[in-house]
Order: sequence, then structure tokens, then C-alpha cells
Amino acid sequence: MTTTTPAVPDRQRHVEDELVRTVLASFHNTPDARLKELMQGLVRHLHAFIREVRLTEAEWQQAIDFLTATGHITTDRRQEFVLLSDVLGASMQTINVNHEATAGATEATVVGPFFVEGSPEIAPGGDMAAGAPGEPCWVEGTVTDTDGNPVPGARLEVWEADEDGLYDVQHDDGHLAARAHLYTDDQGAYAFWGLTPTPYPIPHDGPVGTLLDKTARSPLRASHLHFMAASPGLRTLVTHIFVEGDSLLGSDAVFGVKESLVKRFERQPAGTPAPDGRDLSGRSWSRVRFDIVLAPQRT
Amino acid sequence: MTTTTPAVPDRQRHVEDELVRTVLASFHNTPDARLKELMQGLVRHLHAFIREVRLTEAEWQQAIDFLTATGHITTDRRQEFVLLSDVLGASMQTINVNHEATAGATEATVVGPFFVEGSPEIAPGGDMAAGAPGEPCWVEGTVTDTDGNPVPGARLEVWEADEDGLYDVQHDDGHLAARAHLYTDDQGAYAFWGLTPTPYPIPHDGPVGTLLDKTARSPLRASHLHFMAASPGLRTLVTHIFVEGDSLLGSDAVFGVKESLVKRFERQPAGTPAPDGRDLSGRSWSRVRFDIVLAPQRT
Repeated sequence: MTTTTPAVPDRQRHVEDELVRTVLASFHNTPDARLKELMQGLVRHLHAFIREVRLTEAEWQQAIDFLTATGHITTDRRQEFVLLSDVLGASMQTINVNHEATAGATEATVVGPFFVEGSPEIAPGGDMAAGAPGEPCWVEGTVTDTDGNPVPGARLEVWEADEDGLYDVQHDDGHLAARAHLYTDDQGAYAFWGLTPTPYPIPHDGPVGTLLDKTARSPLRASHLHFMAASPGLRTLVTHIFVEGDSLLGSDAVFGVKESLVKRFERQPAGTPAPDGRDLSGRSWSRVRFDIVLAPQRT
Repeated sequence: MTTTTPAVPDRQRHVEDELVRTVLASFHNTPDARLKELMQGLVRHLHAFIREVRLTEAEWQQAIDFLTATGHITTDRRQEFVLLSDVLGASMQTINVNHEATAGATEATVVGPFFVEGSPEIAPGGDMAAGAPGEPCWVEGTVTDTDGNPVPGARLEVWEADEDGLYDVQHDDGHLAARAHLYTDDQGAYAFWGLTPTPYPIPHDGPVGTLLDKTARSPLRASHLHFMAASPGLRTLVTHIFVEGDSLLGSDAVFGVKESLVKRFERQPAGTPAPDGRDLSGRSWSRVRFDIVLAPQRT
């Protein structure tokens, strides 16, 4: 952190302090106590930022123009403000704050824009790819609580991009693929066929893409497979698993990677028999194990 | 300042700290050093805000929705992001940072959205109201430097709302009124006829208006008259003067008021002779003195 606040004379500091006090006071009568806390917190940090970097008027105008462009590209189908929050790590930090690390429990990460309700149910061992292009991947594991007890009947939602880097909902034709839900068995175990995850860029033809470009950052997300795991009485977990060895692990555009979520996807050469005897038509495939530990419900 | 940061366990604090470090590092290769400083400063303060208030996921979504609505109402003619910056005091703090208080010099305030180029020139003592409705006001003063030397030939731009609370540019018919420029004489003195300032609301039928409403704040600006004063070799000053006794001085919606800019507007009963002999048709009028001191050019 290279903070280089220029020396500010006393007279000037007094003027700036006084303004902060006045703006904070303007929110004093906010009826909703939480809104008051949020607005006063925002004012304190926003003013601290402007004062610390000594924001110029030209830079202020650029910020206004950037927000305006971000607003104008945003539609029902494209949320550029969410992307902005994502690439600043604000989305991930919000996830962190709301899913506090619990000893022994699987860590959470960003939900992303591609979860939708209404996924098809698959039987244990079923294929969630449903024809989406990509290399088959056998995914298996268990769901337990933090005391090690298996969680039977836990609901797992799983979704991912195909090998072209697209989710089903990006195809605009309404079909669902590489998206399903299933339930753990009596021993809390689950297994399904999916796709070996591949990397893809976040939309980068708008203001956020320009920001990434100007800051020499990549729009690529590390390869991943989304999970949502839920069971009554336990805290619902939204997370991904990432692919060990992926060169993008250190530069995920939205900062979703956590070390504990990086898993070994074992590549199986063409012809290797599938664990459930499935005919893979001579293709290569991969397998991964992901044991999920759900935290207790927050009290 | 009521900062109530809940106790955050060590394990959790480590996760949050680590994310901040990762996001800061992602901007490390930004080619432009100033952009890097701005982005890293923004990340530090944005994450500090999220962590301090323990922002919930629902509140994060409300923030996204608020920014989206702010973007969608913004057009070439309406800048809701500027309004947002104004009501958070961010515009005024940016002015403060860029126009550091200089001993003896007149203080700056926000330029506002209603300055336009191409105002008509008026002669000394001329009428800038040009037919705009309102009570006549005789404005006079001098322009000097911080050593007390008069500044002849200084250019003064002056503009204000009419008594209906509207600037000429809000009438959509292209006419200019209550807006002019003039020059100081050989002694650095100036005088003109304008309008006694009256209060008006900032546009409050959009998301920013809703925010003001929910936080029990008024959209009204304290009554004011805008000035821009420029002379080669001196720092250009953008400011307003405010009306002593105005009940809105303590609650100006955009925080433009500074005590040194509050002036006595002396009300003159109907029939009081005008200083320049002008025929005021028996109306009441007011007079105010505003002596402007320009700071040296920044080196």
C-alpha cells in the first residue's frame, strides 16, 4: 500500500474536516437507524478517499463520465455495475462479510450473474451437461456438517460454462444445459457428470472492460464449477471449485478464488473406463472430488 | 461519528485482509502511476466501508439497483450522478481539495450545473437580469489580490436563478437571462444590477430525491448568486454569495455554504432611490457588497 498523502496545511485541513462534519450531520435525522449508519459510513470513506488522493476536478469529471457510461450500458440483460463491483473485489468482500469463515466449513465465493431458478433435477450419477459442449467430468463427494455428520437429502445446485465459455442463459434460446440440481443419498454422498471447467472472460466491451485494459488486468475468470448446497438447519453455501494448475488462479477477474476451493481434476486419457461404466465414446474425461462441509445456521 | 464495528474474529479478519491485498495487487501493473494510485486508494476505502458497516447482500443489491436507476435517469440534460456527488458533499470536497484555503483570499464553492459559456457582456452598472423575474439587486465590490492591490480588467461571470427558481437554461428556449459577464474598472471596482437571490430545489424526482426523502433531508439550496472571477496571473475563483438570514444556510442540499460567503443583502423599501438613479418603477430592491480577493496562481 503506497499511500502518499501530501502535507495539508492546518487551515486547509480545518476546511475539509468541517465539511465532513456538516455532511455527516445532514444525515442525523434519518429515521431508519441502519440507513443512517450506511450513509454516514459512506460519507466518511468517500471523503477520506477524495482527500487522500487529492482528487482533481478533471478526475472527478472522469468518474462522473465513467459512472454515466456504466449506467447507460446496463440493461435487464447486462449489469455493468455488478461487473464493476466484481472487478473491484467489492462483491467478493460482501460475500466474505456475510459468510464468515467458520472453522472446518467449506468457504463461500461469489454467486455470479448466471445462477437461475428452475434447473432440472438429475438422479444420482446423472449428467448435468445435457449436451453442452465440453469434456465430461465425474464429480463426487459428500456433504457433512462441521461435526462430521453426513447430511442426507441436501440439495445441490450445480452450474457451469461450456467449453465455448458460455452459460446456457447466454444463448438466448431458453434451453437449460450444464445446470441441474440433485440430492445427497442416505450417507450424504453425491455424484454427477458435468464438464471439465474451462476459462472465459467476463463481458469486457464496456466501461469495465476499458478499466481492466487501462490497468493491465485480464478479463478472464479462472476455470470453475458453481455449487449451491442447502439443507434445513444448516447455513446455505454458495461456492465454486477451481482447477488445480489453472494459470488463471492468481488473476481471477472477480477475485473468487480461495485456496481451499482449488481441487485436483484428474485427467483420464481416452479409453479409461468411467467409474459408473458410462460409454464415453472413446473421449478423454476428468474426475474430481469435492467434500462439502456446511456451517451451522447463524443464530 | 458513530462507528460501531462489530468484533470480527481473527480467522475472518485474515480472510478479509487477504482479499484487500489481492485486489490491490491486481492493480500493481497499471501503466499510469496516477491511475494506479486512484484505483488502489478507491479499493482501500471501498473495502474499508464494506467491512466496517458489515454490508449485507440485500444492501449490496439495493446499492446496485440505486446506481442502475441513477444511470437510467441520466441524460445529456440531466446528470443524476453529479446530483448524487453533490448531496454526498463529494463535489464540494473536491472543490476544497483543488482550491486550498489561502490566507486572505475569497473562498471557493461548487460551480453547479448551470454555468454555460457565451454569456452576454454588460457595461459597468448594467443589468444582468435581462428581464428574468425577481426583485432587483444592486451588487457592487472590488477585486484585489492578497496584497490588497486592485485588479483592473478582471473578468467576472455572474449567473443566478430567477424568482421562480429556474435558470435561463432550464427554460429550453435558448434565451439567456440572469447571466452576464463584465470587467472591473481601473480601480478594480465593479457594479451591476441582478436579482435578489431566492431558494430553489435541486431536481428531486429521481433516485437522489428519494435518497433525500428517506434521510429526512431537504432538496432546497440556500439562496445564492454565482460568481467566477478571472485575471491573468491570479487563481480563477468560482464561488457564490449567500444571503444573510436565509433559513436554509444550515441545510444547503449541496453543502456549498461557507460562512465567509454569507453577505448582508440590504432590503430597500419601494420608492428608495437607486444608487445609479435607475427608475425602479416603485418596486422594492436590495443591495449587497462583495469584495473579491484572488489568490496567487498556484506554482
